[in-house]
Amino acid sequence: MREQDLSLNRLFEEERPRIQRALEEAVGLLPAPVREIGAYVLLAGGKRLRPLMTLVSARLLGCNAPDLYRLCAVPEMIHAASLLHDDILDEADTRRGRVSAHTRFGLRPALLAGDAMLALADCEVTVFERADMVECVSDAMMRTVAGEAHEIALQGSLSHGEEEYIDMVTGKTGWLLRASCRLGALYAGAEARLVSALSDFGLYAGIAFQIVDDALDFADASVTGKPCGGDLREGKFTPPLMHYVGGLNERERAAFGEKFATGSFSEEEVARIAAIIRERGYDRATRSLADGYLRRAETCLAMLPETPERNVLREVIPFIRNREK
Amino acid sequence: MREQDLSLNRLFEEERPRIQRALEEAVGLLPAPVREIGAYVLLAGGKRLRPLMTLVSARLLGCNAPDLYRLCAVPEMIHAASLLHDDILDEADTRRGRVSAHTRFGLRPALLAGDAMLALADCEVTVFERADMVECVSDAMMRTVAGEAHEIALQGSLSHGEEEYIDMVTGKTGWLLRASCRLGALYAGAEARLVSALSDFGLYAGIAFQIVDDALDFADASVTGKPCGGDLREGKFTPPLMHYVGGLNERERAAFGEKFATGSFSEEEVARIAAIIRERGYDRATRSLADGYLRRAETCLAMLPETPERNVLREVIPFIRNREK
Repeated sequence: MREQDLSLNRLFEEERPRIQRALEEAVGLLPAPVREIGAYVLLAGGKRLRPLMTLVSARLLGCNAPDLYRLCAVPEMIHAASLLHDDILDEADTRRGRVSAHTRFGLRPALLAGDAMLALADCEVTVFERADMVECVSDAMMRTVAGEAHEIALQGSLSHGEEEYIDMVTGKTGWLLRASCRLGALYAGAEARLVSALSDFGLYAGIAFQIVDDALDFADASVTGKPCGGDLREGKFTPPLMHYVGGLNERERAAFGEKFATGSFSEEEVARIAAIIRERGYDRATRSLADGYLRRAETCLAMLPETPERNVLREVIPFIRNREK
Repeated sequence: MREQDLSLNRLFEEERPRIQRALEEAVGLLPAPVREIGAYVLLAGGKRLRPLMTLVSARLLGCNAPDLYRLCAVPEMIHAASLLHDDILDEADTRRGRVSAHTRFGLRPALLAGDAMLALADCEVTVFERADMVECVSDAMMRTVAGEAHEIALQGSLSHGEEEYIDMVTGKTGWLLRASCRLGALYAGAEARLVSALSDFGLYAGIAFQIVDDALDFADASVTGKPCGGDLREGKFTPPLMHYVGGLNERERAAFGEKFATGSFSEEEVARIAAIIRERGYDRATRSLADGYLRRAETCLAMLPETPERNVLREVIPFIRNREK
């Protein structure tokens, strides 16, 4: 690693302790009865991509106030709360190789811990006394929930295409990564076109991130460490499955549709379909769909000042593109 | 009814259609997949006490902008979202004599509809571009969740007393009624001491409201229309039960504690304990506890201008005190 370069990985490593401390402080502000759950889901690790985007966005625009760490905990809290409620919705027993929070602490405390993290995210951004930052967070929460609700409405159905899928992931994942970047840019007090460029960068990166995530759902479990084909089991019609279904004849498609609607694929069927998706390169084709959004994200970067932080954001693009788990 | 008087009941009737319209407009802003659930819980009726408090508070301080109706939908959305999540937490099959939302629409859509209403409440107050109003809503959400989490932490235990109970209901119910009044006062641009007086009025009224609610839990089901003794079944140690347990000997208390912790009272036992609570006047004694807070609420009113709206707020006190269902 060259000394003068600011690399994404180095930044991840360097900033992790300070981001962790900011998250610990946030956990300390949660109501006592849900604090342990907050710590369980918020301090467990993870890529910390959202806090890092907030930090880098602000610094790119010349702001490096110490309060930035407090700010960057905000999108991570919303992210953690949404995973927590997601796991309740999906009845998921595990998350990142650990027992899920609601399985460990019970449904009721877990649901409330999620509500508390959302409320705390609100309170924490309010501290900055900036209407535009508050609006950014409220909008992101609303769009994220709307995306999740959209996903549930589509579940089990094969009748939607790529366009509606993109619309859904824009809400579910795009808006919060957008907010992560936008919060940093707004806090830096940058002019509107720079704030827009960073917001759009975050939005497109977020969409691409989710598309790649959905490609990875059919990757080899021995590489990802996650069970393969969860989306197939849960009736989530993602691009790899759209490709797969596109290759079926009418009769096969009807049989597939029935099992998809009822979530009744056997483990053998899931494994067989995942193998076909990999063999036929449908996961690679899905990554190509992500490429289109990553190119748009790159275009946004061209509008920003040439700084070491801009290079870090440029590295986010292959990081998302080539992620193997 | 005298013509020159502004009575609470007349106001309820007069304002109901406009409050309803504001709530309908809010429902229209929810994500499409959860809109039906939002309508189900938000447009079903109810006392509309929170919106009315916002309206009356603003008018009392000389503000009657048409936007007030939009504002007064905010606390009602938070209230409805918290009932929705509550019913999921309590596995309640019914609410106000109807099938509960999660029973009708499913757990996942209902949970997300609650999240969406909270996010929308945030967005809707942000529209007013007033940092103090945004802070008021964030604080209220946080304190409400904290109160709910506190309640769950206390569940099944007999080891806390009146003081901790009051602390819990202050969060669970007090802060949102406080916010309902405070939002109106802030929007009116009133000076700080008037905003404080109205906020405190709302807080004390809210605490009293919950205490009376907990007394009503042991009232005759034929009067309230709700099943009697729910708190006993759910292990919620409220003032009527504190009085009841205070009258037991050590052996009886241990036996009660065991069933209370495990929620294993038979229907006959619940009916018998409720009858004793009524016979011995423990529900009346509980209303006396509420009286202390209602007196404090009344003291706050003395600091406010003498207007017809102040008289309406004065009527809220016996309304809370004498409620029979």
